[in-house]
Amino acid sequence: MDSDQITDLVEDIAKRARKASLELATLPTETKNRFLLQLADRLVEESGAIIEANALDLEAAQALELSEPMIERLTFNPERIEAMAEGVRQVAALPDPVGAEIERLAPPKGFDLRKIRVPMGVIGIIYESRPNVTIDCAVLCLKSGNASILRGGKEAFHSNMKLAEIIRECLSATGICEDAVQLIPTTDRWALSVLLKQDETVHCIIPRGGENLIRFTVENSRIPVIKHYTGVCSLYIDAGADPEMAESILINAKCQRPSVCNAVENLILHQDAAELLPGLAKALHDQGVELRVDEKAKALLLASGLPLTDANDEDFFTEYNDLIISITVVADTNEAVQFINTHGSGHSDAIVSRNTESVALFLNGVDSATVYHNASTRFTDGFEFGLGAEIGISTDRLHARGPMGLNELCTYKYVIHGKGEIK
Amino acid sequence: MDSDQITDLVEDIAKRARKASLELATLPTETKNRFLLQLADRLVEESGAIIEANALDLEAAQALELSEPMIERLTFNPERIEAMAEGVRQVAALPDPVGAEIERLAPPKGFDLRKIRVPMGVIGIIYESRPNVTIDCAVLCLKSGNASILRGGKEAFHSNMKLAEIIRECLSATGICEDAVQLIPTTDRWALSVLLKQDETVHCIIPRGGENLIRFTVENSRIPVIKHYTGVCSLYIDAGADPEMAESILINAKCQRPSVCNAVENLILHQDAAELLPGLAKALHDQGVELRVDEKAKALLLASGLPLTDANDEDFFTEYNDLIISITVVADTNEAVQFINTHGSGHSDAIVSRNTESVALFLNGVDSATVYHNASTRFTDGFEFGLGAEIGISTDRLHARGPMGLNELCTYKYVIHGKGEIK
Repeated sequence: MDSDQITDLVEDIAKRARKASLELATLPTETKNRFLLQLADRLVEESGAIIEANALDLEAAQALELSEPMIERLTFNPERIEAMAEGVRQVAALPDPVGAEIERLAPPKGFDLRKIRVPMGVIGIIYESRPNVTIDCAVLCLKSGNASILRGGKEAFHSNMKLAEIIRECLSATGICEDAVQLIPTTDRWALSVLLKQDETVHCIIPRGGENLIRFTVENSRIPVIKHYTGVCSLYIDAGADPEMAESILINAKCQRPSVCNAVENLILHQDAAELLPGLAKALHDQGVELRVDEKAKALLLASGLPLTDANDEDFFTEYNDLIISITVVADTNEAVQFINTHGSGHSDAIVSRNTESVALFLNGVDSATVYHNASTRFTDGFEFGLGAEIGISTDRLHARGPMGLNELCTYKYVIHGKGEIK
Repeated sequence: MDSDQITDLVEDIAKRARKASLELATLPTETKNRFLLQLADRLVEESGAIIEANALDLEAAQALELSEPMIERLTFNPERIEAMAEGVRQVAALPDPVGAEIERLAPPKGFDLRKIRVPMGVIGIIYESRPNVTIDCAVLCLKSGNASILRGGKEAFHSNMKLAEIIRECLSATGICEDAVQLIPTTDRWALSVLLKQDETVHCIIPRGGENLIRFTVENSRIPVIKHYTGVCSLYIDAGADPEMAESILINAKCQRPSVCNAVENLILHQDAAELLPGLAKALHDQGVELRVDEKAKALLLASGLPLTDANDEDFFTEYNDLIISITVVADTNEAVQFINTHGSGHSDAIVSRNTESVALFLNGVDSATVYHNASTRFTDGFEFGLGAEIGISTDRLHARGPMGLNELCTYKYVIHGKGEIK
């Protein structure tokens, strides 16, 4: 396809999505759930065909010289397909967000005025290698009454096309407009540029992927973007903190799954909790964690004999996603708050403390989506919050902050019932 | 100033605003209100100086060959300054949105999890001729705990600089960081381009002005933008509607203040309500309204002898802001809904009806920020909704839709109190 053809194609997809979205907005919950359950079944039934399509991607992966972890993420097997289907069934079981009364207002004129949750309209999802995102995002958008336009990466092209075909078949079989979920059938970069300009028909763009993809999206989009940047999370141990709790939360937040965005990257100690540092560092070391220490932390750990790396300021801005931690010491909670607001990414930060004043200072002062007192940052997650499946964890402030579930895929409208009121 | 100097200046303003925002976020309500009340008093006391600065703008307006209505909007007099001060006092009287508990969640692990309203951070306001916007926006941002960066138009430069000076003096006198409200002291277009790239320090951009300004902002901003586009509002008269109510709502919605965004531009009649059209058209004509009719409406009005203009499709997409109305006839409520979703701007639309089914179809199907049953569209307004002063009426779907008051200038954070929970 040349660029004019791609332009026409993407514009047409966007227009059809908009039309479908108006139909989806008033679709009964029952119809949406019937589709979801059928899709779950069909995914399992079509495992063989999905794995066949996936094999083409895995073959191409060799030529693309993808890294082992990327190939890992790209690979489908029967267990993974079953897990994906189970995720779809879970979304079917979630309450329908559409139509809920968010608030009843009290206008001075006395007419009935309610704020009602409604779908956004059309959501564009831009993602990279994992093909399961195709299913995850399509079903969350559909359950929340939104049409979706999916734009996957070239690595998973064949897998994505097969999944989109199954989705389309199930939409058709359950009487839902087939344009409710559309995959852009080309991975040409131009298609993405065109999609980002369709602000008359597409209402929200959610990029899921690396920093380059997100940066490109933000710089080129006329459509509002909800971003899911890095998680540079910190744990602050206050003076007088319970030593056992401090260690248990630290080890959990750093080591339980270091590759995720809500894992801790920075450890900050109050100077009056300095005596805890050797023990905490030993516990981290025992778990295989590399210790990157600034001058102050280093001074407290020299006698420990533990292997230490010098941390520079850049380290405290870094999401390692690995068994590495940066450690610093501060004079007081105020300094800890400032340190986090300067170095963190506004994702999830925690204080371990028994001091009410410190806790209030920290929870109010740290400008992050989620702030914890005496709990692990690892709970920042739609399921752990009781919200169900999430489309991502927003590090933005507008519209959605933190885990973004079905409610956050919606907007609202004001509905007024009057008796002939005029101004 | 050359462009490098402007770049440095705007980057510095943004950084200082971000720093101030962290202080503002935890400022007591009392301090914010003390500032607001002092500002209101000082505006009145400084009326003379404000009018003097304004005179410089009015002088320049001659050279710029501004239109009469633009000069009208630009002009300050003691009454207008008093009204502006009164607006500030009203904001002082509104409840502080910051710190309110929006929701208490029920996480499976049982820790205490609350969603708390907090300020966004730094808000950039880009506006054109009216200098009172400087005060209106500064006080709404400050009351909601946000730092603001104001970028006014060149027409009101001297007035804006004077108002910013008074704001700064009152911030200082009440012990609030002076960088909480900053006016960019140049109207060079480059300053705007630089501001729109400060996505590390500025969290939201609100353009208030004409379509060109909004278009430029959307195309050049890396920062999320909340738009306030046109209001192409429609009134639909259903079959069997109460004739008196239909006329009263129509005349109010079209004529009470035709220049505003919530005034009606399109009249849509159900074909079985066609007998009402001559009376409604006569009533509109009596109010001086020009009637633009499509073929179907024309056929129903030919016998009336009223002066008619032929409407083309473009007319039904047009915000006249004037005593002009476009009229069409539809087969049923479904067609009316589709007509509005195609031609309207998603602002405010109304149905006059006694038929429950029609009403539900309309209120659910019309994809607009505010939908009315048996009331005038003129109520789409922060005060009429009981929300207090608004910074604008959003035609966007993300974050804020419809009137955007203090709550909508905030975001939220999740606050967790645990007892040592780990995952």
